[in-house]
Amino acid sequence: MKIITDISELRENLSQEQKIAFVPTMGNLHSGHLALIDQANQLADCVIVSIFVNRLQFLPHEDFNRYPRTFEEDCNALSAQNVKIVFAPDEKILFPTPQEFLLALPPVADILEGKFRPGFFRGVATIVLKLFNIIQPEFAIFGKKDYQQLHIVRKMVQQLNLPVEIIANETVRAADGLALSSRNQYLDEAQRSEACRLYQTLLRIKQKINSGSKNFQTLQESAISNLEQHGWKVDYISIHQRSTLLFAQASDQDLVVLGAAWLNNTRLIDNLEI
Amino acid sequence: MKIITDISELRENLSQEQKIAFVPTMGNLHSGHLALIDQANQLADCVIVSIFVNRLQFLPHEDFNRYPRTFEEDCNALSAQNVKIVFAPDEKILFPTPQEFLLALPPVADILEGKFRPGFFRGVATIVLKLFNIIQPEFAIFGKKDYQQLHIVRKMVQQLNLPVEIIANETVRAADGLALSSRNQYLDEAQRSEACRLYQTLLRIKQKINSGSKNFQTLQESAISNLEQHGWKVDYISIHQRSTLLFAQASDQDLVVLGAAWLNNTRLIDNLEI
Repeated sequence: MKIITDISELRENLSQEQKIAFVPTMGNLHSGHLALIDQANQLADCVIVSIFVNRLQFLPHEDFNRYPRTFEEDCNALSAQNVKIVFAPDEKILFPTPQEFLLALPPVADILEGKFRPGFFRGVATIVLKLFNIIQPEFAIFGKKDYQQLHIVRKMVQQLNLPVEIIANETVRAADGLALSSRNQYLDEAQRSEACRLYQTLLRIKQKINSGSKNFQTLQESAISNLEQHGWKVDYISIHQRSTLLFAQASDQDLVVLGAAWLNNTRLIDNLEI
Repeated sequence: MKIITDISELRENLSQEQKIAFVPTMGNLHSGHLALIDQANQLADCVIVSIFVNRLQFLPHEDFNRYPRTFEEDCNALSAQNVKIVFAPDEKILFPTPQEFLLALPPVADILEGKFRPGFFRGVATIVLKLFNIIQPEFAIFGKKDYQQLHIVRKMVQQLNLPVEIIANETVRAADGLALSSRNQYLDEAQRSEACRLYQTLLRIKQKINSGSKNFQTLQESAISNLEQHGWKVDYISIHQRSTLLFAQASDQDLVVLGAAWLNNTRLIDNLEI
C-alpha cells in the first residue's frame, strides 16, 4: 500500500490502472468505511482511499479543528484491506490558492442538512468533484448514512456528465442500531447509550408507515417530541421521496425518513429507507 | 470523419484513443476556428470538435435564436481538416433535465464581459466542464480573442484539478485587423468597413503604452470618446494585468487591453497583449 500526498505522483501511479474504485473519506476510519472498501474491492483491482478533512464543508463554528484525525491508525486499518493507494494530501495540495471555483447547487441542497448547515453540500460537492478529477475513478463508493450527500453526488455526476459510477453502500450500525460515525466518539458513556434512540425513532416511523400510517406530519411531530423528552435537540425528523428527496406526500411510494439531532454538543444523523 | 450526437456512442469511439485534442465551438466556423484545429492537429492524433450553441451563456435578450447555425458548411470545412470526430449533440443530450448544477465563479468573472453579460461565464464554464467530462481530452484549444474566457477556463482547470492542458491560440484577423468572429456577419457593408476601428483603437493604446505612456485612465477615455465619435456604443476599453486580469496599475508589467463595443445591434470584442 502506497501513501501518496502529491497529485502528480498520484496521477503517475494511477496512469497504468484500468479500473479504479475510489472511497473518499475524512479519515478516522470505522467499520462503516471498511464496508465501503470491501465494496470497492469487489468492483475493481485498484482501490484508492482518500483521507482529507475538507475545510470547505465545515461552517465557521463547526468542529473542523476538533474533528478526529487518526492518520496512523487509519493507515494500519487500510493496509489490511487490499487498498493500493492512500491519497492523503495536505491543504496546500488541494487548495494551493483559496478555492474560488465552487459548485452552485439546486434547491435540494438547501433542505435537511443544507438548511442546518448552509454551504455544507457546496463544500462536499466541490471537493468530491476535485477528487474525481484527480483520481478519475471508474467507481466511487458512498455510504447511505449520508443519504442527502449521496443523492447530491449522484445528481452532480449526471448533470456534469462525470465519467464515474456512484455505488451506494448500506449504513453500518452498532449492535444497538446506532449508525457508525466518527462523531460518535464525542459521546460520553451515558450519551452513547442514549444515542441509539435516533435509530429507534426512525425505525418506529418506518414500521408505522409500513403498517399504513399516512399522516407524516403527526409521525414527524411525535418523533421529535419523544426525542426532546429524552434530552435531544432535534434539527429535523422528516419523511421524503427517495428519488427526488422532496418532502413526501401521503400518496408517494419509495420513501426515506431522515433525522438529525443533537445530544449535548454532538450532532448525529441517520436515515432509513421505507 | 464521424459526426456523433450521442454521449455513449462518443465515449465508445474515444475509449481507444490515447491522446485527444479538443476544440469546443458554437459552429459557424471561420478561419479563427480552423487555426485552433490546426493547433489541435499538432498536439494529438485524435482531434475532436464540438458544435453546440450553448443556451446557458446567452442572456434572455441576447442573440441565442439568431446566432448563425451553419452545420452542413461547418462539417464540410471540418472534413478537410483531419478532424476525427464532430460532436454535435442537441440540447436534450446535454440538458436532459434543466441544468441545476452550475459553477460559482470568482470575482474576475464579474468584470469586463461579466459586467455587461451577467451569467455569461457561468454558462461558459459549466458547458466547458461538461464537455471536458464527456470527452476527457488531453488538450483543449481556445482562442485569445475571448481573452477573459481563456483566463477563466484556465483558472477553472487549476482550481478543479481537471486533467486537461489548455492551449491558447492567437487571434486570427482579417486584412484590416478586424478579429474574425461569427458575429461579424451581422454587419452591413458600411459597418464592416468601420468595424476595424476597434482593433486600431486597441493598437494605438498598445503603441502608446509601449512608448512609455502610463496614464491608463486617459488612454481608455480618449479611446472610448474616439469610438463614440464614429458611432460606436462602447461597453469598455480597459487595460488589465495579463496574469490576473485585474485592472492594471501604472507600475504593472505584462498588460492586455480589452475592448467591447457595439456597432448598431452588433457587439464586437477584441484585445491585444502589450
